[in-house]
Amino acid sequence: MNVYFACSITGGRAFEAVYQAITHALAEDGFVIPTAHLAETGVIDEEKTIEPRVVFERDVNWIRGAQALIAEVSAPSHGVGYEIGYALELGKPVLCLYEQGRTVSKMITGNPHPKLWVKSYKNPENAVNLAREFLSQIKLYL
Amino acid sequence: MNVYFACSITGGRAFEAVYQAITHALAEDGFVIPTAHLAETGVIDEEKTIEPRVVFERDVNWIRGAQALIAEVSAPSHGVGYEIGYALELGKPVLCLYEQGRTVSKMITGNPHPKLWVKSYKNPENAVNLAREFLSQIKLYL
Repeated sequence: MNVYFACSITGGRAFEAVYQAITHALAEDGFVIPTAHLAETGVIDEEKTIEPRVVFERDVNWIRGAQALIAEVSAPSHGVGYEIGYALELGKPVLCLYEQGRTVSKMITGNPHPKLWVKSYKNPENAVNLAREFLSQIKLYL
Repeated sequence: MNVYFACSITGGRAFEAVYQAITHALAEDGFVIPTAHLAETGVIDEEKTIEPRVVFERDVNWIRGAQALIAEVSAPSHGVGYEIGYALELGKPVLCLYEQGRTVSKMITGNPHPKLWVKSYKNPENAVNLAREFLSQIKLYL
């Protein structure tokens, strides 16, 4: 089971610990997360060396090959906003998670797409639980 | 001629002066910019009072009714990233403008869509000229 994890890279890394809690927990559950390296510290320098076109094609192909997309949306990001729309267009279930109290774009919170879940979390453990609940609801746990 | 102008709201307002330079200039040229109020100072408080679903439906309908979309992408934004993808999906020409030296998501700079233009500007006047050049190239000037 492939799950695409989307998080802010150039838009800010203040929520890196949450990104890692989610990707590590889901990897332990047996999910393949092609974007897991984007949650790790130092990814900005690493991604800088890759051509934009290569990153775009890579990420789009990973979304096509995933059964679902989970996005952490506490820190704003053009890329993540684009990816959420792209996954929904393909009919993939999408979960957007944000830290309680953060303001999230109304293009996300106001989107009535039936395959979009938007949830706030209190701490990294809570975020992990919400991710697992989502994957369970869309029947990705065997 | 309707042009949708997209800019960061919750993601940061550091480039508000550029937003206003663009929307004011295009309005002077005779374009209808349904989102012109989003470029104005104080828009965050104003938009806070509107239901997310209403903002989403309003913005999506405005994109559908526009001949082109111009996005200022110097400050990250989920909403703007979503809107860029949505407009391209509908086949609308899109111009993304950013201040020289800013890092922009590779989901924008690496996107090979034939209707997407991505340009950097030096100052607000230069941004206005690039917007006019784009609208001229896609033949929206009569």
